[in-house]
Amino acid sequence: MSTKAKGTHAERELFHMLWDQGFAVLRCAGSGSTTKPAVDLIAGNRTHFLAIECKALKGKAKYLSQDDIEQLLTFAQQFGAEAWLAVRFDNKGWRFIEAQKIEKSKGNSFVVSYEWLQKQGVGFEDLIQ
Amino acid sequence: MSTKAKGTHAERELFHMLWDQGFAVLRCAGSGSTTKPAVDLIAGNRTHFLAIECKALKGKAKYLSQDDIEQLLTFAQQFGAEAWLAVRFDNKGWRFIEAQKIEKSKGNSFVVSYEWLQKQGVGFEDLIQ
Repeated sequence: MSTKAKGTHAERELFHMLWDQGFAVLRCAGSGSTTKPAVDLIAGNRTHFLAIECKALKGKAKYLSQDDIEQLLTFAQQFGAEAWLAVRFDNKGWRFIEAQKIEKSKGNSFVVSYEWLQKQGVGFEDLIQ
Repeated sequence: MSTKAKGTHAERELFHMLWDQGFAVLRCAGSGSTTKPAVDLIAGNRTHFLAIECKALKGKAKYLSQDDIEQLLTFAQQFGAEAWLAVRFDNKGWRFIEAQKIEKSKGNSFVVSYEWLQKQGVGFEDLIQ
C-alpha cells in the first residue's frame, strides 16, 4: 500500500471508530485545494468537539511540517474544538496527542516517535472521554 | 455551468462567506462515498456550530429528497450543531432555513421555493448571529 493510500485507510478507520463511539464525524474534502486551514476529520458528540489530523506511520518516527501543526491549531481554535494529532503505527495501533504538546525538534519541523507517544500520548479511550 | 458544477460553486462561495465572518469551515469529502450521514459544510466560531446542506437553484422551486433532510437532521443532532439548508437562487442570492422547519409536500419529498423562503427563511446576517 502506498503512503498516501495508507494515510487514507487510517483516516477511514478512525472515522468509523469515532462513529461507533457516538460521534458524528466528517472527512474533509481535499485539504490541499484551499488556502484556508483544514484538518482531516472533525467530530462532535454534543459535548466534545475534536479537530483531528491523521498520520499513518510505518517506521518508528515521523517528521511533521510546521504548516501541518499550525493549520490544526488555527482551525481548532477558530472552530472551538480540541486539536488532536492521531498517529497509526503499523502493527501497533493508534496513539493520540494534543497538538499543543508537540514540540519542535530541529529547524521548523516537528517529530513524533512511537516511544515518545507511548509516554506522552493517550489511547483511543482517553481521546473520546 | 452544469447543475453539479453550480452546486460546487455555491458551496465554495458559502465556505468563503463564512470564513470571512470568523467561522472555521470544512467542506465534506464526497458525501456519497459513505454510509454514514453527511452534510456539505460544517462551521464553528466557538459559540455557534452550523451543519449545512447547500443547494443551487436555477428555477423557482426545488424538490429535496427525504434522505437529504434526514441526513442533515441526524448528523446535526449527533454532532451538536444547528441544521441549516442553504439555497442559492440564480441572480437572487442566498436564503437559509432551519431543517426542522421544512415541511413535506407530497409523498416523501420536500419542496422549497423562492417565495416560501422569502417568507419563512432568513438571510446570511441571521444565519451567522
